[in-house]
Amino acid sequence: MRDAKAMAATPADVKEYPNSYVFVVDMPGLKSGDIKVQVEDDNVLLVSGERKREEEKEGVKFLRMERRVGKFMRKFVLPENANTDAISAVCQDGVLSVTVQKLPPPQPTKPRTIEVKIA
Amino acid sequence: MRDAKAMAATPADVKEYPNSYVFVVDMPGLKSGDIKVQVEDDNVLLVSGERKREEEKEGVKFLRMERRVGKFMRKFVLPENANTDAISAVCQDGVLSVTVQKLPPPQPTKPRTIEVKIA
Repeated sequence: MRDAKAMAATPADVKEYPNSYVFVVDMPGLKSGDIKVQVEDDNVLLVSGERKREEEKEGVKFLRMERRVGKFMRKFVLPENANTDAISAVCQDGVLSVTVQKLPPPQPTKPRTIEVKIA
Repeated sequence: MRDAKAMAATPADVKEYPNSYVFVVDMPGLKSGDIKVQVEDDNVLLVSGERKREEEKEGVKFLRMERRVGKFMRKFVLPENANTDAISAVCQDGVLSVTVQKLPPPQPTKPRTIEVKIA
């Protein structure tokens, strides 16, 4: 896991919604079970996985081999208002989407109305 | 469709089986309906599609945009023994697999046995 050289990068988009951040990562050929989504150091979103080349079989020959296999990892530093207790992930058509909810903004101090009695 | 500059390449593997060729192309985020598989000039397999960025919505901001969108195309010259009438394609987890059957090898001429009668 620590060997950066063996790690392939995979393109990602990051989108900000009013109430959440969404991290979209291309992962063609990976199923949900092959992908790991973790939070490290309280503010780093870590997405990792491994794409395996199917085993060589008797009578099968590769004429071309461009698709990258192996481990890959992406790290995203989360914004301060990310709620690391409210993260969900879904993988569809080889694309992983991780949604991180935002913490509610600090409650603005309500203006206090003080009744002034006129004596 | 003819503008090569607008076309992104996408990695592919080509495998040869005893009775078929299989072309494997990464297409994360595309559904079967977004992909076109054609045979051109009788011996060229053409795989094309388009990945669209979802429409910009009010209140959604892209903080990072690495995933490529747009049209893409891959062409493969088919071997002579490819049977262009026997092609099937399936897309799963963002990976397209196109199987092209091989034509049966030309029937070897059977050795003829000529009975030689001894006079």
